[in-house]
Amino acid sequence: MGTHEGNRRRVELSKRRTFGESLKASLKDIFFPDDPFRQLLGQPPWSRAWRALKYVVPFLEWAPNYTLHKLRYDVLAGITIAGLAIPQGISYARLADLPPIYGLYPSFVPPLVYALFGSSKDLAVGPVAAASLLLASIIGEAVQPEENPSLYLHLFFTAAFFTGVFQLALGLFRLGILVDFLSRSTIVGFMGGTACIIILQQLKGMLGLRHFTTSTDLISVMRAIFNQTHEWRWQSSVLGVGFLCFLLSTRYLKTKKPKLFWVSAISPLLVVIIGGAIAYAVHGENEGIPTVGPLKKGLNPLSIGTLNFEPRYLTTTLRAGVISGTLALAEGIAVGRSFAMFKNDQIDGNKEMVAFGMMNIAGSMTSCYLTTGPFSKSAVNYSAGCRTAMSNVVMSACVMMVLLLLAPLFQYTPLVALSAIIITAMVGLIEYEEVYRLFKVDKFDFCTCMAAFIGVVFFSMDIGLAVSVGISVLRALLYVARPVPCKLGRLPGAAAFRDVEQYPDSQPVPGVLAVQPSSPIYFANSGYIRQRILRWVEEEAEGSRGKEDELHYVVLDMGGVSSIDKTGIEMLQELQATLDRREIKLAMANPRIEVAEKMVASNFIGRIGSDWVFLSVEEAVEACRFVMHETPPPADGPQRS
Amino acid sequence: MGTHEGNRRRVELSKRRTFGESLKASLKDIFFPDDPFRQLLGQPPWSRAWRALKYVVPFLEWAPNYTLHKLRYDVLAGITIAGLAIPQGISYARLADLPPIYGLYPSFVPPLVYALFGSSKDLAVGPVAAASLLLASIIGEAVQPEENPSLYLHLFFTAAFFTGVFQLALGLFRLGILVDFLSRSTIVGFMGGTACIIILQQLKGMLGLRHFTTSTDLISVMRAIFNQTHEWRWQSSVLGVGFLCFLLSTRYLKTKKPKLFWVSAISPLLVVIIGGAIAYAVHGENEGIPTVGPLKKGLNPLSIGTLNFEPRYLTTTLRAGVISGTLALAEGIAVGRSFAMFKNDQIDGNKEMVAFGMMNIAGSMTSCYLTTGPFSKSAVNYSAGCRTAMSNVVMSACVMMVLLLLAPLFQYTPLVALSAIIITAMVGLIEYEEVYRLFKVDKFDFCTCMAAFIGVVFFSMDIGLAVSVGISVLRALLYVARPVPCKLGRLPGAAAFRDVEQYPDSQPVPGVLAVQPSSPIYFANSGYIRQRILRWVEEEAEGSRGKEDELHYVVLDMGGVSSIDKTGIEMLQELQATLDRREIKLAMANPRIEVAEKMVASNFIGRIGSDWVFLSVEEAVEACRFVMHETPPPADGPQRS
Repeated sequence: MGTHEGNRRRVELSKRRTFGESLKASLKDIFFPDDPFRQLLGQPPWSRAWRALKYVVPFLEWAPNYTLHKLRYDVLAGITIAGLAIPQGISYARLADLPPIYGLYPSFVPPLVYALFGSSKDLAVGPVAAASLLLASIIGEAVQPEENPSLYLHLFFTAAFFTGVFQLALGLFRLGILVDFLSRSTIVGFMGGTACIIILQQLKGMLGLRHFTTSTDLISVMRAIFNQTHEWRWQSSVLGVGFLCFLLSTRYLKTKKPKLFWVSAISPLLVVIIGGAIAYAVHGENEGIPTVGPLKKGLNPLSIGTLNFEPRYLTTTLRAGVISGTLALAEGIAVGRSFAMFKNDQIDGNKEMVAFGMMNIAGSMTSCYLTTGPFSKSAVNYSAGCRTAMSNVVMSACVMMVLLLLAPLFQYTPLVALSAIIITAMVGLIEYEEVYRLFKVDKFDFCTCMAAFIGVVFFSMDIGLAVSVGISVLRALLYVARPVPCKLGRLPGAAAFRDVEQYPDSQPVPGVLAVQPSSPIYFANSGYIRQRILRWVEEEAEGSRGKEDELHYVVLDMGGVSSIDKTGIEMLQELQATLDRREIKLAMANPRIEVAEKMVASNFIGRIGSDWVFLSVEEAVEACRFVMHETPPPADGPQRS
Repeated sequence: MGTHEGNRRRVELSKRRTFGESLKASLKDIFFPDDPFRQLLGQPPWSRAWRALKYVVPFLEWAPNYTLHKLRYDVLAGITIAGLAIPQGISYARLADLPPIYGLYPSFVPPLVYALFGSSKDLAVGPVAAASLLLASIIGEAVQPEENPSLYLHLFFTAAFFTGVFQLALGLFRLGILVDFLSRSTIVGFMGGTACIIILQQLKGMLGLRHFTTSTDLISVMRAIFNQTHEWRWQSSVLGVGFLCFLLSTRYLKTKKPKLFWVSAISPLLVVIIGGAIAYAVHGENEGIPTVGPLKKGLNPLSIGTLNFEPRYLTTTLRAGVISGTLALAEGIAVGRSFAMFKNDQIDGNKEMVAFGMMNIAGSMTSCYLTTGPFSKSAVNYSAGCRTAMSNVVMSACVMMVLLLLAPLFQYTPLVALSAIIITAMVGLIEYEEVYRLFKVDKFDFCTCMAAFIGVVFFSMDIGLAVSVGISVLRALLYVARPVPCKLGRLPGAAAFRDVEQYPDSQPVPGVLAVQPSSPIYFANSGYIRQRILRWVEEEAEGSRGKEDELHYVVLDMGGVSSIDKTGIEMLQELQATLDRREIKLAMANPRIEVAEKMVASNFIGRIGSDWVFLSVEEAVEACRFVMHETPPPADGPQRS
């Protein structure tokens, strides 16, 4: 054995985890990346049970330490978000083509459930615009709200029930991984597109139209508007533009003076009150200012008996439930996470899913349609200084008072006021600056984003979402199928080996080709990696001018190869056989644990010889050069030297 | 600036490729990984045109150097494979429920086309068993062969036409990438399952049954066999078992004495001749030994006018064409590649696709159904010592002679002889040893393989294939969504940093957490990576006992991060913000070119400071320790020190 072998540290190749161990490790990584049971270790049984219970019901975590001081903040925040919840609720119910009162119910029961199970301190729950419109468009395909309003309503509850079950299941089976496939760019595009079509829908209210299309795409909406110019009412428009200017200016005020956030938070309620007063005074209904119409006093009626599981509506409700549930989760979790970050806090995606699921199941039984954590409400909650989920409880109490006492007053709310409120909320969701940044940083992300946007605006919301997710998944597969292997060279003045394209001054070592596959190797990319390496070998062979720099060694830097499958191992064997026939020796540097295990199990290490597995590229190249200069024709292994 | 900054080599961060450059580079990597135009560079125009033509028509590459010496080998190989082609063709035509003569036609025209365009020297083309059965099962759903035999036949030609167009398009658009998604384990499982159901189908012939099921699944076949025990014929069975023993023993002889491969290669023809003689002598048809029946003399009739593009059959033919085409490609390319490897040769997947496409388009117009490169025939071709694709031309000539002169002789071939031939060919496709190796090396690959096998055996061939590909793709996505980040420690006695789990004796550096994400970072895994890193930070914080080993630095080893998207960059920003609030400084080591570009474009580098980007983990850790010991509370950057 050569001197360079003297005190060389070997790569550990004998160790092999059992199937059970490696399965356990990978299942744990897939489903419990946050390792929730760590805190249970080494605790006495009663404490373990209490901690487990606290894990499931986060309320128990913070309630014991709840103080009057925190309550003061939470009450203030709760009242502020209630002021926003009422007009927003009525508006979103209209987007969903539901009677206005069904926009208030979701701000009563679900927040109480969320306060128990939710792990975010800042999220304020309630209905959201995008999901409302999405549900209306899916359920509207099966039942027209004008034809059978009660069936339409019941299908909404059923969809909410499925949403809840779906979210709960995702959380319990710890499948937070699914939400990971809704990329940020998909959400930006989808939200932007949805905001655009929701704004367009509001032209109905702003122009005082009575008939409108149920389609959501740009072309149908434009056609519906310009085909009935005779129905346009200037009264509505004047009032609407006035409200819109007021709301937008308070929004602008907030961005300039963040301290005055409360002005913009209560302005929707102001608009509703002022609008209602005007409509009441001038008998708006007769003067071209349509109003919301009757609202019944009273708390959420039970709706458990109305859930509709008839087979002919099952695909519709399941589809509506799952798509809107995924979307609601993605939005809710993203919102919760952003605010938690400001407070240097963390929220648990899987726990949030359980909380959202419980909330929607409870909601579907008490006349609520889909609820989640909308961005606008949560932002107000955060700005108002909420401390815990108690602010949701306060909001719920306020809404309860309204439902019991004041609901009928809201019947005079002009539709145009609601339209102005929705438009103002939607303007903030069109993140054109973000889109520009996407364009600058990553063109592919930009395409994903635009696909969602165009799909939503010109076709339908679920088409936009599906196409964009499809592109994202395709991209993920492309990442997998086309990794970025690179050729390594020695950096002058440093021992390290780096990508020759990135560091053009790095030097190749004569007779040795060092390559970094830098990606897991498996069926989808092994052919490509093999081809790429052989092309480099070819180039080296063409470029060599004589015996001296003839290629004798190929060193694979396996540091970035975090896993490998059977096809990948076979590719390596094939590669080794091909190189062998050209009298080129294959050496491995720094194989990772899982890869080393599989290379041993498949006897690949046996074929290349365990002496040819090195701890680093530097060592491997050193050994190759040593052997090359000792015994010119390279043979079975360094032990010959 | 501290001394450690003195002559440190910086990571190149200023360079940024234009969008055009990086798009060109990645498109080239996706579609032209083999860089076919390299050889055209720096050539005069006429030479360039000639080389381009040679690239498209590989025949021109080898024909000028063709010698009489090579021809001798090719003639021998060609005659041998013709001897196999005739009985196999008739057998496979029966599998596809086509008149026997249509099994001979594909061995006449397509080999000639392949000889022009194919890049493999060893592939022998012809029909294959799996695709024959698959086509019969898909087309049989639309038209029963007994009801309308000519329509059934025409749909086969149409499917072959679509297969050709599909394969040609894949090749021209250089989408060899699609075939990469058929993993080795899927193919092993699919082939094994198909071989099993094909063997079961042969029980019809072996038992001399007249009625049989068109389903391919185990249960239907078993029911069909045991429901008509009264139709079983001992005469057929005796003959069949005899033939089978003979064929299997020649097969066994081949494995023992590879030199005698030609015995097993001509044995099917022997069986056909002997069987035909027996059937003729004893008037088999009346004695319980059904025969093939009339075969018409003459070359392939033109079938271009019979291609059927009627809309009601279009989905069937398209589906049949695309599925069988993909499968045929996967088999053909894999076979070609394996044999090329023995000869230290390479074949080009995209070129092969073009050749297969041309061959099937030409075939569909001359009464041939799907042709590809079957394993058995190619293996015989290789063993017989073929030198070039000329052996296909010789085979074609032999088959032509048979078609013109001898075809009617084959009408006496007993069906049971064909069954014995098919069974013998199929036995070799059940690679139980390979399945055992899969089980040993990679449990997930084993599942993919078993899914294909079980799907094919118990349900149907396309279900088996789809489920198995689905599992493979899911796995690829799982790889993407759950990478294997690891914590690094310093190896004692070496400067290098390695995974602490793999090298349990490696030492953490107090105050510094070094982490290697070791995978591209993007939307599907960024949440996971963030969570994983924060958990380590959490653990470090819990584990620290005092001021001394309090965590001050997190070093990310970006060496394995070959790419990143917008979501990934945002995750890093979020991570940096979170760490910042805990007074922990984030440092980067060895970012790759694409990642560095995006981090600069999104101003992430600006936020962490370009002084905190290092060439290697070792340097980064060194710098952190230096600053830590100079100025205890870490601040904006090393320039403070």
